[in-house]
Amino acid sequence: MLIGIIMRIDKDRIQDKNQKDLKSHQESFDFLSNRLEKNNCNVNDIIDKLSKFQVAIPSWALGAGGTRFGRFSFQGEPSTLEQKIDDVGILHALTQTAGAISLHIPWDVPQDYEAIKQLAVSHNIIFDAVNSNTFQDQKNAEKSYRFGSLSNREKTIREQAVQHNIDVINIGRKLGSKSLTVWLADGSNFPGQNNFQNALQHTQDSLKNIYGALPDDWKMFIEYKPYEPNFYSTVIQDWGTSFMLANECGEKAYTLVDLGHHLPNSNIEQIVATLMLKGKLGGFHFNDSKYGDDDITVGSIKPYTLFLIFNELVYGMNNNPQNPYPAWMIDASHNIKDPLEDLIQSLEAIQEAYAKALLIDQAQLRAAQIENDVVRCQEILQNAYRTDVRPLLQQARLTTGGALSPLHIYRSLKVRENLITARGVNSKAVGL
Amino acid sequence: MLIGIIMRIDKDRIQDKNQKDLKSHQESFDFLSNRLEKNNCNVNDIIDKLSKFQVAIPSWALGAGGTRFGRFSFQGEPSTLEQKIDDVGILHALTQTAGAISLHIPWDVPQDYEAIKQLAVSHNIIFDAVNSNTFQDQKNAEKSYRFGSLSNREKTIREQAVQHNIDVINIGRKLGSKSLTVWLADGSNFPGQNNFQNALQHTQDSLKNIYGALPDDWKMFIEYKPYEPNFYSTVIQDWGTSFMLANECGEKAYTLVDLGHHLPNSNIEQIVATLMLKGKLGGFHFNDSKYGDDDITVGSIKPYTLFLIFNELVYGMNNNPQNPYPAWMIDASHNIKDPLEDLIQSLEAIQEAYAKALLIDQAQLRAAQIENDVVRCQEILQNAYRTDVRPLLQQARLTTGGALSPLHIYRSLKVRENLITARGVNSKAVGL
Amino acid sequence: MLIGIIMRIDKDRIQDKNQKDLKSHQESFDFLSNRLEKNNCNVNDIIDKLSKFQVAIPSWALGAGGTRFGRFSFQGEPSTLEQKIDDVGILHALTQTAGAISLHIPWDVPQDYEAIKQLAVSHNIIFDAVNSNTFQDQKNAEKSYRFGSLSNREKTIREQAVQHNIDVINIGRKLGSKSLTVWLADGSNFPGQNNFQNALQHTQDSLKNIYGALPDDWKMFIEYKPYEPNFYSTVIQDWGTSFMLANECGEKAYTLVDLGHHLPNSNIEQIVATLMLKGKLGGFHFNDSKYGDDDITVGSIKPYTLFLIFNELVYGMNNNPQNPYPAWMIDASHNIKDPLEDLIQSLEAIQEAYAKALLIDQAQLRAAQIENDVVRCQEILQNAYRTDVRPLLQQARLTTGGALSPLHIYRSLKVRENLITARGVNSKAVGL
Amino acid sequence: MLIGIIMRIDKDRIQDKNQKDLKSHQESFDFLSNRLEKNNCNVNDIIDKLSKFQVAIPSWALGAGGTRFGRFSFQGEPSTLEQKIDDVGILHALTQTAGAISLHIPWDVPQDYEAIKQLAVSHNIIFDAVNSNTFQDQKNAEKSYRFGSLSNREKTIREQAVQHNIDVINIGRKLGSKSLTVWLADGSNFPGQNNFQNALQHTQDSLKNIYGALPDDWKMFIEYKPYEPNFYSTVIQDWGTSFMLANECGEKAYTLVDLGHHLPNSNIEQIVATLMLKGKLGGFHFNDSKYGDDDITVGSIKPYTLFLIFNELVYGMNNNPQNPYPAWMIDASHNIKDPLEDLIQSLEAIQEAYAKALLIDQAQLRAAQIENDVVRCQEILQNAYRTDVRPLLQQARLTTGGALSPLHIYRSLKVRENLITARGVNSKAVGL
Repeated sequence: MLIGIIMRIDKDRIQDKNQKDLKSHQESFDFLSNRLEKNNCNVNDIIDKLSKFQVAIPSWALGAGGTRFGRFSFQGEPSTLEQKIDDVGILHALTQTAGAISLHIPWDVPQDYEAIKQLAVSHNIIFDAVNSNTFQDQKNAEKSYRFGSLSNREKTIREQAVQHNIDVINIGRKLGSKSLTVWLADGSNFPGQNNFQNALQHTQDSLKNIYGALPDDWKMFIEYKPYEPNFYSTVIQDWGTSFMLANECGEKAYTLVDLGHHLPNSNIEQIVATLMLKGKLGGFHFNDSKYGDDDITVGSIKPYTLFLIFNELVYGMNNNPQNPYPAWMIDASHNIKDPLEDLIQSLEAIQEAYAKALLIDQAQLRAAQIENDVVRCQEILQNAYRTDVRPLLQQARLTTGGALSPLHIYRSLKVRENLITARGVNSKAVGL
Repeated sequence: MLIGIIMRIDKDRIQDKNQKDLKSHQESFDFLSNRLEKNNCNVNDIIDKLSKFQVAIPSWALGAGGTRFGRFSFQGEPSTLEQKIDDVGILHALTQTAGAISLHIPWDVPQDYEAIKQLAVSHNIIFDAVNSNTFQDQKNAEKSYRFGSLSNREKTIREQAVQHNIDVINIGRKLGSKSLTVWLADGSNFPGQNNFQNALQHTQDSLKNIYGALPDDWKMFIEYKPYEPNFYSTVIQDWGTSFMLANECGEKAYTLVDLGHHLPNSNIEQIVATLMLKGKLGGFHFNDSKYGDDDITVGSIKPYTLFLIFNELVYGMNNNPQNPYPAWMIDASHNIKDPLEDLIQSLEAIQEAYAKALLIDQAQLRAAQIENDVVRCQEILQNAYRTDVRPLLQQARLTTGGALSPLHIYRSLKVRENLITARGVNSKAVGL
Repeated sequence: MLIGIIMRIDKDRIQDKNQKDLKSHQESFDFLSNRLEKNNCNVNDIIDKLSKFQVAIPSWALGAGGTRFGRFSFQGEPSTLEQKIDDVGILHALTQTAGAISLHIPWDVPQDYEAIKQLAVSHNIIFDAVNSNTFQDQKNAEKSYRFGSLSNREKTIREQAVQHNIDVINIGRKLGSKSLTVWLADGSNFPGQNNFQNALQHTQDSLKNIYGALPDDWKMFIEYKPYEPNFYSTVIQDWGTSFMLANECGEKAYTLVDLGHHLPNSNIEQIVATLMLKGKLGGFHFNDSKYGDDDITVGSIKPYTLFLIFNELVYGMNNNPQNPYPAWMIDASHNIKDPLEDLIQSLEAIQEAYAKALLIDQAQLRAAQIENDVVRCQEILQNAYRTDVRPLLQQARLTTGGALSPLHIYRSLKVRENLITARGVNSKAVGL
Repeated sequence: MLIGIIMRIDKDRIQDKNQKDLKSHQESFDFLSNRLEKNNCNVNDIIDKLSKFQVAIPSWALGAGGTRFGRFSFQGEPSTLEQKIDDVGILHALTQTAGAISLHIPWDVPQDYEAIKQLAVSHNIIFDAVNSNTFQDQKNAEKSYRFGSLSNREKTIREQAVQHNIDVINIGRKLGSKSLTVWLADGSNFPGQNNFQNALQHTQDSLKNIYGALPDDWKMFIEYKPYEPNFYSTVIQDWGTSFMLANECGEKAYTLVDLGHHLPNSNIEQIVATLMLKGKLGGFHFNDSKYGDDDITVGSIKPYTLFLIFNELVYGMNNNPQNPYPAWMIDASHNIKDPLEDLIQSLEAIQEAYAKALLIDQAQLRAAQIENDVVRCQEILQNAYRTDVRPLLQQARLTTGGALSPLHIYRSLKVRENLITARGVNSKAVGL
């Protein structure tokens, strides 16, 4: 049946499609492995790490995004939570690295929790962090967030926003999520509009109230962002503010880093290193940007920066037991690409940066640093970065049943065409 | 009748309201004039210049703006072109500096040209530059601008976009406009998406085709912007590109500067000076911003920069006969303020910057520059800037029948409340 | 005797010079006071606050600065510590707001402490924060700071840097200073050069060691800066890092904000508000900039931002007993201006911003904020900012024996010419 | 003799050193070639292009650079022009891509032109663009450039600066140079200091005067830069200004792009495309930066941007006969690296970006662009970029007699140690 083809990609079909390129891949992989092993690199270990690295897909990334000037929607977008999970299932089947979905409430409130959970299980997908939304007014909302939510001067509005976050936690509990992500858009558009100190204190109090409702085995991630949608100030404008608030909330509160949420020229990798040293890097949102929070495909603009960030992430995962394993998510939006193709490209770029970071010879790097041999430090990083790691990524996918070339197979299976047939041309995703 | 009160503010009512503050104003004005005259400043001349300085209001600024994250609309927004003209009429009655409206097509296509023109005349308002829109797809459009309009690779799409601009010119002719503003959002979101050279050449050809349809007494303004809604490249990314294109089109083509369309830290006043020296500054869009094209109230973030820009504008108007008198327009958007109040604040900030620039003693500045007396150059600018020029602005409004305090009178006349009563709570403006 | 005229400006001479403008000033001041008093503004209180506001002059600001491309030195620069103190004495006599000097070690190590202290007392000047220097190698230094000082991988280098800071404290104690400013230039020029986590931990340990040597009644100020002289990373890159380090050191450790040490578009006033709320704003360095750490005259580029920052400082001083009274200092450098004239302009700009911030009607602002009347919030700030406060500054100087117009009197007394006569054309200041 | 070893690296010694890695290289190269040929890539053509690509080394890059905060000099720096040429000879022998030197006057005025030319010939090095210096005052200069040179208000200063440029041309003629690079540091530090229009007109006139003295077969390159050493404005602030000036000078005048001379987030590759389309890209300065004009090693921060730029350069070289072959130069400076090692890293990064750009399948890219297949456009670029092209670079060097691994051989030959022995520890290069 056609629907069956659309909603789910059989492993067998993927293996079939892989056949054509298998021999060529094997040659490339062997050649590369051989070279790497000669340099004391444990290739099996890298393949294993790549296989286990899973990135959550946010439910809102499955439809086309837009700008304030308009939105060009994409055909065959998922219009229900079930369809969104199916889309992530497709991604995961192909890439074997998208084994989680991150829901956004109230856009994705399940009707039948058990059915939803079973659907996810059938796709081998778990429910990652749940996301609250207090940056838009929901229909029938009693109070408006026009002038802020958790930071609002008015107590009843703060209470509504806190309650919403608690509701989100409760929805997440039913699905097996273990963390809440709070992105607070609150801020001001004009000097004088807000009293900075009051807004910060209200935010701190609100976060503490949410934190109080957090189950013991949950984490709370506090996002930061310097501007947009507010254009003069944001209450949680930088990692320092988020870190301070997380410390005040308690052990289960962490900072979340979104790559696009920084001022021009920020050294993000250093922020990552600091947070991991202090045990406070909880979550990570991948995307790329040239100007602001552009939310474009991961690795499409600054792949070397992504690699440098992964260098710090790898270092922290190996050396900072005080830091929990971070929650990974893609937070991108696509106005002109097929959202699923875009996510495949993002996942590939993430895995590539991770693989290259794993190639860095940490012992040699440490030795070169100790000798202040700056030239050699750079060589070691560039040596890893310049390596073509695509055979490693392919091998990792191959061992887990994924596609050698996810994008090619996605196209050759005519996934989008089938989705359009099943869902219709005008199907639209809820969200941004 | 209630409607009458709303739609039009009688000069008499304004004069009545002015009475209360008249004595106080007169004292302040006399004190300031006296001081200024002692320093060889011709106060009458300044008052005269301020009175004559008129800024166009774009039709889309009369409703609340928004961001990609949402829009909080404002009550009583104008939902027809007639209502928009009424709103500008209110602004002009109060401030006497908003004597023009700038229409955006296809949002503001008149039904009955004569009626619209008479309405404008009754408000003492003219039709300034008309604006085309090829950054959104219109309903029933044959071709989509998703991948560009004037720069599109496909000839039929470029032709559609050129024809739209010609249509806009024709609409403008019927209303008495004398210029067309082309803001081209075209660009790309990802490296490789566009061939830069082809896109630029297509744009040049398209602009020439539009230029070919321009009446002899018209001007074409070519806007530039570095990013947004495209996040990797914009075809007309900077003044240099606009200037080059304008030169290639011909004498009637000019560059238009929008204050928010620059990379961080740009020296905009120098761009203004260069364009006026070359006779190519055609239009000017006022707004303010801290991060990108934030489109917030003029003068709310960087009033000193605005003053420095006006210094160049005043210099150019006095010394560059090769440059036409520029078309002034406010291009701002307001998510959390009453749009009319916001525009009153913008108009005040513009007049303030202009008045202060007029206070600069150009002869002394020139002398200090020749002596390389940098300290004194700065003193001369700061001396003008530090002067409280509000009495001059008030005097200019008083002589033309406007309000001493436009904002206070707007509120005391309960204009917004009346507009809501007349138009309804849910009235919405078309546009961004 | 000529020397006497140069080194010290008699109050009587200043009073003489003031005579000419006294009547005009009195009229302006009366008119302004009258207006302000009508608006429930306590003018005497403002004058009193302005009189008491004192800003330290750093010893290195008295000579011409430079760039990596060269330095154009200024004639008559002070070449000894005594001459630097004399220069600050001149500034203080004229402005009555430069009652402190901030020394930089090793550029300013006194030979005869008692004589130096007496000289300062004679000028009515105190010794503010002392500054260490571990960003340059001193002659005969055993270890080089080429690869870092407090953060260096090598223990002996860190120890040398810590000891230097302790030496600076000891010098400061003998002079009556009560605080140490640590600006740490350490960082890296290339990815991979440094291990971020190690560098941060070394820095933390080093700072704790310095802190351990801090007298009980002293404070330690930790400066931050995103880049330069290192162009990939700085160990203490932002306020968050400084704040974290200060918290780890203890109660006497504070963050120091330098206006030029931020990434493009940073909201500095919000950082100030956060630090004061948390009781951790220890020091403040004034300057202005358009691009990076340009170190140009205070208020010459973004005077409105300076006003917004002062708004937060005033708020904090009134509402945050948890925060100590901050140490104020000018940190600017002048390649093309007479350094003393430049400092006079900076002091004027600081006082202006302070005065305008004092004019803000905090009760009304609070009321407008509670009503979410954003338009009115902006009006209240702009109402204060647009006021010409120069008569208030002049009145404050008049009551303390300073000059109505410091710059004019500086020039009419031919101070620079006299300094050149006394010190010679080629006299050069040590420092940047 | 020791000196012989130092000053010149025999091809034979390099071939000896290459032996060890030859087999391994051959395997890698064969494997890669094979893959590339399968994708219709002409590997021989690429090797040929890489071999011919030569980048000039500026004489000032051979010593350690510095910042305004200090300079840590490097041992064994070249202190004479002869030694500088020797250093470039070493670079060229190893890399076979540094076959030119770019002199800076007055730092590098030859004493004996014939001897200097013979020395260069013996190294197989030509004299590329000569650079004038009007941003510093030379000893015994009659007039100071403190307030500008070509843009100065004073005619005699402009004349001195023009004459200096003509002198530089004359020096260049004697050496066989064919182009003059004008980097104009002129600008202002404070608003009001300069009259923008006058400064621009003076600059235009001065450039025309220099242009008038240009031999028929020469080119003049006009550099642009937004800020530093001036911190408010630069006369030639952007490509638009340079392009305008070049057009006004004439056919032999071109714009020169320096990668570090742009505002944050500039799209440099688009500027390159525009200039080549218009036939006005004359020269190119390579370096890298994270914040401003950081002048650090090419490719050390943003290698993907470098690749995108090379994509445009390759496109332009193939499609724009109207544009001359650009003059390539490295313009970097190194405070903490051995300058020669740093240059080897820069040359490698340049060749890498060039090789990857040559791998882009232009026909497929064009086809994908025509179909608006944005995903595929990105894939095509990333496919080229992700390829490990080091074997191609090595092969190109091998065929021209260079080193497989220039850096390793540089170190194993102990070049720096030998230079120190020959020149002494304290030898210092003139320049920045």
